[in-house]
Amino acid sequence: MRRGYFPGEADFLSTAFITPVQDGIREVEQLMRSQAGNEHHPDLRAALEHLLTAGGKRVRPTIVFLSGQLFNASHPRLVTLGAAVEMLHTATLVHDDLIDGSLLRRGIPTLNARWSPAATVLTGDFLFGRAAKLAAETDYLPLMKLFAETLTVIVNGELTQMFAAKGIIERKNYYSRIYAKTASLFEMSSLAATMIGTEDETIRAAMKTYGYEVGMAFQIMDDVLDFTGEQATVGKPVGSDLLNGLVTLPAIYYAESHPDDPEVRTLADGGWGNNEKMEQLVKSIQASNAIRHATEEAIEHVEKSVEAIKPFEHAPEYHSLVALARYIVDRNS
Amino acid sequence: MRRGYFPGEADFLSTAFITPVQDGIREVEQLMRSQAGNEHHPDLRAALEHLLTAGGKRVRPTIVFLSGQLFNASHPRLVTLGAAVEMLHTATLVHDDLIDGSLLRRGIPTLNARWSPAATVLTGDFLFGRAAKLAAETDYLPLMKLFAETLTVIVNGELTQMFAAKGIIERKNYYSRIYAKTASLFEMSSLAATMIGTEDETIRAAMKTYGYEVGMAFQIMDDVLDFTGEQATVGKPVGSDLLNGLVTLPAIYYAESHPDDPEVRTLADGGWGNNEKMEQLVKSIQASNAIRHATEEAIEHVEKSVEAIKPFEHAPEYHSLVALARYIVDRNS
Repeated sequence: MRRGYFPGEADFLSTAFITPVQDGIREVEQLMRSQAGNEHHPDLRAALEHLLTAGGKRVRPTIVFLSGQLFNASHPRLVTLGAAVEMLHTATLVHDDLIDGSLLRRGIPTLNARWSPAATVLTGDFLFGRAAKLAAETDYLPLMKLFAETLTVIVNGELTQMFAAKGIIERKNYYSRIYAKTASLFEMSSLAATMIGTEDETIRAAMKTYGYEVGMAFQIMDDVLDFTGEQATVGKPVGSDLLNGLVTLPAIYYAESHPDDPEVRTLADGGWGNNEKMEQLVKSIQASNAIRHATEEAIEHVEKSVEAIKPFEHAPEYHSLVALARYIVDRNS
Repeated sequence: MRRGYFPGEADFLSTAFITPVQDGIREVEQLMRSQAGNEHHPDLRAALEHLLTAGGKRVRPTIVFLSGQLFNASHPRLVTLGAAVEMLHTATLVHDDLIDGSLLRRGIPTLNARWSPAATVLTGDFLFGRAAKLAAETDYLPLMKLFAETLTVIVNGELTQMFAAKGIIERKNYYSRIYAKTASLFEMSSLAATMIGTEDETIRAAMKTYGYEVGMAFQIMDDVLDFTGEQATVGKPVGSDLLNGLVTLPAIYYAESHPDDPEVRTLADGGWGNNEKMEQLVKSIQASNAIRHATEEAIEHVEKSVEAIKPFEHAPEYHSLVALARYIVDRNS
């Protein structure tokens, strides 16, 4: 994986851009924990605790705080929004892991690895309900609508992926998939936080672009890390996307420049289920410059995100937002 | 099953109380159909069409219209609310049927009977998202909060039922279960529609009570029909609740008056998994007066619902609301 674009190989939670928001993140986690109170079943509380302990980078709430603070949005409403966004994200992960049969996430057992499918479905539903409740508690209807719309975009994307995307080598398909899967919620995070702070439509559009571009970069780098990362750090086997029939950007670049590679032909002819050939294809992709091309494409998105927020370059949050965007392409997990 | 409480064995959609709302119900169904537009996956549209064709009594939207019309609530907002409520109800049924492994509902194959578990989970999620979006489109935040709160009550109830309620012979457990499962959404339907029409808290409380009591009656009668109904009409095998370890009101009445019945003892000792004994217990309950006692309890709830709306007895909707409540205990499916 390409390194050095942003100096130092930083752990997300120790990076400079997190400092202005770390108190807020703590409040978000507290608010999330409080969502399964004593009126709920103990096993549900335990599940929520497990999910919260499993952690995650909290990159979405970080975007919420930095974007909102840039426009003097009310802090308590940003905490509520941050918790709503992260809860929605968690809910989709719970159902995703169940559907994919994933047993580990971030090196920690998934809920479905420990619970029945039924309990996992319902816990995800509970988290959806709590996320919706938190979104409503921001007391701002346009934000509530945005929240609901984003949820349907995410789920529709998952359904499309399930029904139609196996083994398909196609850029358009890939981009719309990663928008639904990741960029839509990033976009919502920056836009919703900005909406709390200002009614200026030009500013809102700029911040929406920021979230969108950062989100696209984030997912492309996730897909690059699936080829270049170490299993221990990424938390899943190397090349697992392709072995599951999911054609991501590195594979698309490789296929475009090696149309006659026998494994590419196998993939194009619907043979993604041939594990041996796909493992060979993973190795070919790793050794090719497809990784660099995909990383460069992620960097282009990062640069577009930085460009979008240039009008706010004199605000302190600007520098944190730039650093966060650049961190995206410099992480190793 | 007891008959004749409300004269005539009426089909819901041909009853008098439906006339003032039937145009509204049609608009609700149209709005629900439009929720999976061309931007969504064709299989998702097909699933929604299947679910809507499977029908249902639309009793919740009927309560929405009658309650809202009583207080001159805006018709378009009632249509949106009615669709949100019915969509939420549909979403919970989709996940319920998956969890219970039910292959038929209302005599029509369930989604999980035709689709993979993964697709069924995601379709339910999509419906949750659409329900939340519709709730947001009522443009009224307190209603949005009520909606999200109701969703978590329903899901928490399902989780509690899954983790803790197998074979438990206990009234308190039963009542809180049927509140979460059914009465909470009935209560929300009457309350939310009233909230659109009036800010008067006394009126809102009265209408909330109406929905609550009708909902409790509805679920108790559902549980009675599980013992007395015909499989073809009810759409599931007779006695299926008890065979699945779900102790409902008729079984509780029977157990209370026959503590020494050997099958009751088996049930109390955790033996709900003994199919042969449970089938015998179903027969004993059917032949006992437990059915009448449970039905009488449902009627008490109906009378309380009628009592709650007495202040509005001069309005035309009052009579429809009374007729709807009484229909609850006189239906056969």
